[in-house]
Parts: sequence; structure tokens; C-alpha cells
Amino acid sequence: MAESPKKPQRLRARQPRGFIDRSPDDIRATDRMVAEIRKVYERYGFDPIETPFFEYTDALGKFLPDSDRPNEGVFSLQDEDEQWMSLRYDLTAPLARHFAENINELQTPYRTYRQGWVFRNEKPGPGRFRQFMQFDADTVGAPGVQADAEMCMMMADTMEALGIARGDYVIRVNNRKVLDGVMEAIGVTDPGQKLAVLRAIDKLDKFGVEGVRRLLGEGRKDESGDFTKGAGLNENQTNLIIGVFANSTAKGVALSADSGVPNVTAPGAIFTVDMKTGDQTAEKVISPFTNFDTVDYLASQTITNQSFVSGIGELRDVATLCDAAGYGKDRILIDPSVVRGLEYYTGPVYEAELLFDVTNEKGEKVQFGSVGGGGRYDGLVKRFTGQDVPATGFSIGVSRLMTALKNLGKLHVSDVAAPVLVTVMDRDVESLGRYQKMTQELRNSKNEKGEYDIRAEMYQGNPKEFPKQMRYANRRGCPIVVIQGKDEREADGGPVVTIKDMIEGMQIADGMTDNAELRKARVAQVTVPDTELVETVRKMLAAQKAGR
Amino acid sequence: MAESPKKPQRLRARQPRGFIDRSPDDIRATDRMVAEIRKVYERYGFDPIETPFFEYTDALGKFLPDSDRPNEGVFSLQDEDEQWMSLRYDLTAPLARHFAENINELQTPYRTYRQGWVFRNEKPGPGRFRQFMQFDADTVGAPGVQADAEMCMMMADTMEALGIARGDYVIRVNNRKVLDGVMEAIGVTDPGQKLAVLRAIDKLDKFGVEGVRRLLGEGRKDESGDFTKGAGLNENQTNLIIGVFANSTAKGVALSADSGVPNVTAPGAIFTVDMKTGDQTAEKVISPFTNFDTVDYLASQTITNQSFVSGIGELRDVATLCDAAGYGKDRILIDPSVVRGLEYYTGPVYEAELLFDVTNEKGEKVQFGSVGGGGRYDGLVKRFTGQDVPATGFSIGVSRLMTALKNLGKLHVSDVAAPVLVTVMDRDVESLGRYQKMTQELRNSKNEKGEYDIRAEMYQGNPKEFPKQMRYANRRGCPIVVIQGKDEREADGGPVVTIKDMIEGMQIADGMTDNAELRKARVAQVTVPDTELVETVRKMLAAQKAGR
Repeated sequence: MAESPKKPQRLRARQPRGFIDRSPDDIRATDRMVAEIRKVYERYGFDPIETPFFEYTDALGKFLPDSDRPNEGVFSLQDEDEQWMSLRYDLTAPLARHFAENINELQTPYRTYRQGWVFRNEKPGPGRFRQFMQFDADTVGAPGVQADAEMCMMMADTMEALGIARGDYVIRVNNRKVLDGVMEAIGVTDPGQKLAVLRAIDKLDKFGVEGVRRLLGEGRKDESGDFTKGAGLNENQTNLIIGVFANSTAKGVALSADSGVPNVTAPGAIFTVDMKTGDQTAEKVISPFTNFDTVDYLASQTITNQSFVSGIGELRDVATLCDAAGYGKDRILIDPSVVRGLEYYTGPVYEAELLFDVTNEKGEKVQFGSVGGGGRYDGLVKRFTGQDVPATGFSIGVSRLMTALKNLGKLHVSDVAAPVLVTVMDRDVESLGRYQKMTQELRNSKNEKGEYDIRAEMYQGNPKEFPKQMRYANRRGCPIVVIQGKDEREADGGPVVTIKDMIEGMQIADGMTDNAELRKARVAQVTVPDTELVETVRKMLAAQKAGR
Repeated sequence: MAESPKKPQRLRARQPRGFIDRSPDDIRATDRMVAEIRKVYERYGFDPIETPFFEYTDALGKFLPDSDRPNEGVFSLQDEDEQWMSLRYDLTAPLARHFAENINELQTPYRTYRQGWVFRNEKPGPGRFRQFMQFDADTVGAPGVQADAEMCMMMADTMEALGIARGDYVIRVNNRKVLDGVMEAIGVTDPGQKLAVLRAIDKLDKFGVEGVRRLLGEGRKDESGDFTKGAGLNENQTNLIIGVFANSTAKGVALSADSGVPNVTAPGAIFTVDMKTGDQTAEKVISPFTNFDTVDYLASQTITNQSFVSGIGELRDVATLCDAAGYGKDRILIDPSVVRGLEYYTGPVYEAELLFDVTNEKGEKVQFGSVGGGGRYDGLVKRFTGQDVPATGFSIGVSRLMTALKNLGKLHVSDVAAPVLVTVMDRDVESLGRYQKMTQELRNSKNEKGEYDIRAEMYQGNPKEFPKQMRYANRRGCPIVVIQGKDEREADGGPVVTIKDMIEGMQIADGMTDNAELRKARVAQVTVPDTELVETVRKMLAAQKAGR
């Protein structure tokens, strides 16, 4: 039997799930944002370093993004020699490998920043990608909290360098030892229960005191009826947690704990929280509180174990160092409800939070929230070296920060003008040569500062239909179109070119001293000797720029 | 039986085979080089685009790096839904997918550039990595050779923008149709034999006429005795190939074919090649030849098939367009021996070659060679759309170009100064606060142009031993060290700081008008009121810079 000829199957062009292409505007905006961040880090004495995309899977080890699924979440494959390799899922685990590998050559404390793509093999969803960009800074070999305090200052300076106003962001700081001390005080030792408690505390902003109380106890049912199992704490345990954390959140600080549980939800106002319902009653308005007030409040708790006391001491030192350097609570705020997800933190943890409101997918106004964070992780290098190596650092989610800047109108929108188009009227190769020459003259001309400043291209499509070329220029946003047909070339007195201003209805910028001159210059079309092409195009572009 | 307690096994910190970390200097140099390249491409009207690291394997399809091993050479893994995905191995196949996917929205001709890492799952070796950076530019939807000619001009401008002098590089151009026409003329149709012939031609530079003659025939044995099987052509076939290709290489051009086989190995000298031995005899010295001479020589061959004639016509048009735009053979050279490896090229092919000598691993002087190239690939989008889409583009190997620039002394070596170090004399938290404040003052001060210009850091290691801090400053290359101990703090007349110039034996730059003043300022150590810290450090840094 002869096989029936198969119709060649056409391939569908599509991206793998959870991956996207990036547009010119997105690339240019990211590049500018990243350059600003880099400048701050360099100023702080950090140098760039870059690790490859692959690491041996064992080098990433247990520090996987989701501790509940230690063997999932990453892209892995087996090398020819059967060793497993994985694409990096963050920029911290590779740094630990890099440091351990070069420990004898590196000067410590070792300050580096790293920027690049990381990969998570997770279920993609709207706005949830499997490849995204992080920007990290770390100090390895620095044992004191001064290194952590400095990280917080650097995060604050970074936010402001990007145009985020003071008050629109805050760097929140806590200490993992405080959290551990509280766990110890209420007798929670099971890692699973501990994680459930930390996750509940982390939800204070989202669900409020009452919601968190349920998550700490039996569990919480949301509006859709979905039930989240609780941490299973009893009422005394829960009260202690609420006492410590709900009363000193990012929004305020409690100054004393004698009558009910005082709480400040807006700076300067003391509230009393009903322990059963979470209802808050304003008690009095106080003078501005400081980070030291928060630390004092925490120190006034009846918890005396070493971890808690040591954590409070470190928080106080962070407050002292920030205060001395002029970074008050409007920039760096001690906030014991900060948890941070990863389990490897061993001391201070910190988080950059954006405070302005955005509308979420349900149409509700919500605070923008975290754009990055980090903390101290003294154990990460130990797996390689056998010894604790003190380290602290943070990571910024580049895409999320981009979204935030877009919301604030602070994202540098592309100001790169589209190229000048040299059209093709005659298609013989000699004419093409002339058009090419004009194009190169435009590209290779420099302004008075000695910089190239004209983007130009010759039309490269099928030049048969001239209107198609004009449509192309229009859709592409070409600011100027250059035309030379037979008439222009054979004009009396030598060849000329027609130069068309494609940007119409433009406004001349206010306050220009030479408005009249510019306005006069803004004719829709001029015809000049072809020797004046470059000069005329440059003038027209300048007039367009002034009018923007 | 009780299990014997296992000693916890320590993990060895190492990079996967064929992957490396990048140093600060390397990162900064690459960034600057890439920025220069980008400027040229932008000027030519190209815009950035970025595709993700993964593509579905079928979208990469048969266009694998090594056509002999179609299913190897890439890193692939299976997604949860069992579809195969691969890491991109170049930036061309993903562009074809991107274009096909967005064909209805994109304006054509579509000019883009793309820069990024690509991956090859090949055996790593010295200088041969499995992750490397490419920088590509492509025009999709441009049918005419003017698009190819423009690519060549852009490559030439890129070389010069990077500081490579005219004469140290050349862009060599050929046309795949010329090669195909020659194959047709000698009756070679078998794809395997064709590839063997193309590979032999590609070796002209390396093995000379005699070596290539062997590769075209039975085969070639190298000095070590290794035998490479030949393409199996007979003598007539071989003579025709040598006649076309060996006589019009990058080094020269033949002007007539009447007596023996004239050949120009250096511009302006005509040689005769003995067909049997490959020996060359100088005949006469001629006036400078042009690209048109080369095309004329090719046109004078007795080959008349359509492919060959059409290829020659396109080469002539490229020569005309380049000539009209002022790009002579010193920048863009028609050279029929250019092959380019990939099979998907359908028209013009081009290659940027660096002409200066370097010493290879055997200690021999060799030309540096190719740093990038490309060509026309009208079929690449067809697999998705079913229709030929004309496209042309080229790729630069970023690391290889970096190596070239390093050889030429044109690589921007890092001019980023190491940070000023604020040392820690007293370790109480109040003192740390003071050191932190000094550090922040340095970091947050701006010069008269309103730019931040001082990198600074406070010592973050264990501050017990002061000499260790000085050693750190020395090894890290800190230009200045700031010291404030108890004596300085409690000095009569208010607290002072000691500022130490760490760069000794420096020369004041010639031609500085204020040399004397600068020299006076170059004391090894000064003590000033701490209110003058920033000002003093800035002056000292300026003096150091002037002395570099």
C-alpha cells in the first residue's frame, strides 16, 4: 500500500507557558531603572558579580523557594555525566556557592550586587511568570548589625533614587530572633506549626487582628467559603502573639500594655484592642513615637528567653545606627510583624514596602505592598565550608518595582524618537545608492557636542507603492520623511530633497525664548538642496523636541 | 542493628562544567562595550526586543547549531504537560517565532536588535563555554539586498565605534547563490558532499590552496597524522572550485583568467597559481583593485546557471550600494570564499573579520579572525507561516569580541575607584552610629554638578584588630581611609578626623594648570575638623584622579 502523501503540518508560533517577550519600551525602562539602582549600590561600595544560570542541584540544596515542596519549583536536568543541574531560582544560593568556592581569594567583608533572570518551575498564572528579574545586594563576612542597618539605608536610598517620595515607601525591620523567642515563650517547637504561626502573623495587614486570631487558632473561612486550617494555638498563646505583634505593626506602636492592649494604628494615636473581637477604640493622641518607643514596648513584654532578649537588643542597635545616620522611622521603621518567607534567616529581616494605594483585580483599593526584602542568613555558606559565615542581603523584584513606578508615574517612558525615514522613489540600484548615501550621512553626522544624534533608516520593504511607505512611516512614528524623486533630482539649480515633518498639531513648549522662530520653522514640508539635508533634518528634530 | 552515625558530608562548592562566574571588571567592560554597540544599532533605526530563555523545542526545530547532530547540542527538558522546551541556543530562531506570533501587529520591515545569553549543550573545553553572550541585529520583511548592504555598513561602523581602526578589521561579503551555482556547475547535489565542499572552501585561509585541494579530493592528513576524509571531487571539479575561490579571496582578486590562474594575494599584486601544487608566482603589480573588479572576475567564469548569475548580480548591487555610501573595500570586501556555517542562509552572507595577528596556544602568529557574521535567511519564518518571509541579520560573539579588544588594548578597563573606608576604632553602638553617619555623609554628598561622586563604606568585619582593617583597605584598593578614635573625638577645639591617602608614589598628570596646588594637597595624612570630612575627601580624590 502506498502511503497517502501527508500535508506538511504547520508549526504554531507560541511562547512556552509562563514566559513572555519584552517590548522595546519595557527593555529601555528596565535598563534605566536598573542603572539607577546600580548607582546607589556602587556608592555604597558594592561591586557587581555574576554567576552562571546553571548550578549543580545539590549546591542549591534545601534552599528551595517553597520549603513544602523541596524537590519541586526549579528547572532541572541531568548532565552527560549524570549530575543534576538546575537553573538558578534566586541570586542568593549561587552567591553562597561562589563565596565558598573563592573563600581564600576574596576580601571579607565581601560586598557584591547581582542582577539577572531567575527561574521558577511553578504553575504560571496572570502576572505570574516562570522567568523574572531580581536585583540583589549582599555583604558576606560582616557579623554586626551595622551591616543590616546599612542594607536598610541602601534600600531607602534606592527607593528615593527611583523617584519614590518619602512617605510613599517605608523599610520595615524586624529580627528573626524576636519571632523565635516568642515561639519559645509559647512553647511552639514543631517546625510545621511554627511556619503556620509565622504565616498567620504575616497576614496581619491583610486580614486584621480578628482574621489572624482565627489563623492562629482553629482556622479561617474566607468570603468564598474556602477554609484555611489554623496553627492550632490555644487562647493564651494567641493572646501573647496578638499582644506582641498586633500592637506594634507598621502603622503604629503601643506604648504601654496596662489597660487592655493599647495599639496605635496611625502614628500618634493610641488605641485599645478588644482581645476577643479585635475592635479598636481610640484612647488618646500622643506626640510622635520613635523606633525606640517600639523597641521599649517589645522589651516591656514578659518574655525573657535569650533569643527574644538578643533580638530586641539587635533591633535597638539598628534603631540607634539608623537614627545616628539621620534615617528616622519615616524611612526605616522597626516593625515586629515583618516575617519574610524564607526559613534560612537567622537575625534581622527587612522589607521595602510601598504605601500608596492601587486598585486590585477585584476593584478594591489596597496598599501596593512589598517590592523587595531580605535579611541575615549566617548559615547559607556553612553547607560548603562547615563554618557559619555571617551574611546579610536583600533582593528587589525588578518587574514588581517597575509596576509600582508605572503606578506612580515615575517610570521613565521611552524618549527615544523613531528614526527618520528616507523613502525609495526610484528602484534602480543607482538611485538606491543615493538613498543609502543620504541615510548614512544622517546616521554619521554629529551634533556640536560631537555626539551622533540622528536615527535614520532607508525604506527596506517593497518600494513599489509609495503610500505604503508613508503608512509605514506613520505607524512606526517616524518624525521626518525624506523624499527625492526624479523631479527633485533633476531640479533647476541642482538636486533637491523634500523633507516632511510627520508630527502635526504639536505645541511649542511654554517659556521657550525663541518660540516665534521655532514656530516659523515648523512647516509641514520643505524642499532644500540635498547638500542641506542633514542640517535641515537636525533643525526640524530640534523644533519637534522643543514642542514636546 | 543500630546504624553507625554518619559524619555529615560536606558539599563541594563548584561550578557546573562549562560555566563560569564573571568578575566586576569583566561585567563593567562588557556593559560598556554592549552600550557602544547598542548606540550604533539605535542610530541605524533598530529597536531592542527580548525573547525568553525557553522556547518549545519544536519551535527551534531543525535549526540546531550542528546539523550533523540535530537532536543534540541544546539543553532540553519536558514541561508538566509533557511538551519539550529548550534553552535558546541562538537569538535568531526565537526571533522567527516572535515574528510569526506577532505578524499581524508588527510593522515590516521589522528592525530589531537583541542581546543576551545563549546556551549550547556541548562538551566544554578551554575557552569553550556552554553559556555565552550574543548581540544580534535583524531586519525581517526586507526583500532587497539594500538590507544586506546596510547590515555590512552597520557591522563596519560597530567595529570602529569600539575603537578598532580601519585596516584592523574588514567585513567580508559573499552570496550563498554563488556557492550554490558553483555546486550546480560541477554537478554536486548530495547535501553531505555539498557541506564537505563548503567546509573545505572555508579552510582556504587556514590550509592554503594545496590543503583545500586535498580536502576537496581524497582527503588531508595533518602534521599529527590525523586524516580528514575529503569531499571526493575529481580533478576537473576541484580545478573549477579553486579557480573561483582561491583566486578571489579576502586578500586579493584576480583580474583575468587567461594565463594559468592569476591570483592576487596582496592588494595590487597579480599572481599565477600552479594548479597542481598551489605554488604562486608574482606576475605584475597593478593599481588598486575594487570590489567591482572582484565581481567582474567572478562574472568572467564560464558558469551560466541562474543561481550563479543571480548571486553575482546581488554581489554587484551590494558593491554599488556600499560604494555609493562611501564604504570601500577597506571596510566592506566582496570575497567569494566566505561560507558561514549555518545551512539556512539563502542569499548574501557576511562576516566581520579582525586582521591583526595574535599568538595562538601553539605560539604561532595567526590572524584573530571572525568576531561575528550573518546573512539572509528567507526561509526561517516559513515553518510557522507557510510563506517565505525575507530576512537578514547578523550576530556578534560578545566574549570573542571582548578578547579581541583586550588584545588591541581597546577594552575599557574599569575606572571605577574602590570605596573610601571609614574605619571602626571604638565598637560601642554610639561610636558605630558616628562612623555610620560619616559614611552616609560621604555617600550622600554631591559634587558641583549635582552628581553623587563618592563611594564609601564603613568597615563591616570584626573591628577588634585595627591592622586587619588597614590590610582590608589595602587589598581592596581603597583610595582613602578615615579614622576617628577617642583622641580625635576628644581633641581640643572639637572632634577631628584623620584622613589617610592610601595611594602612594603617584604622579601628578602632565599639563595640569594647578599642579603645584595639587602636589601640595597630596600629603599622606591630614587631620581636619570632622565637619570638613566630605570636602577634604573630595579634594583628595580629585588629586588622586589628576595623578592617574
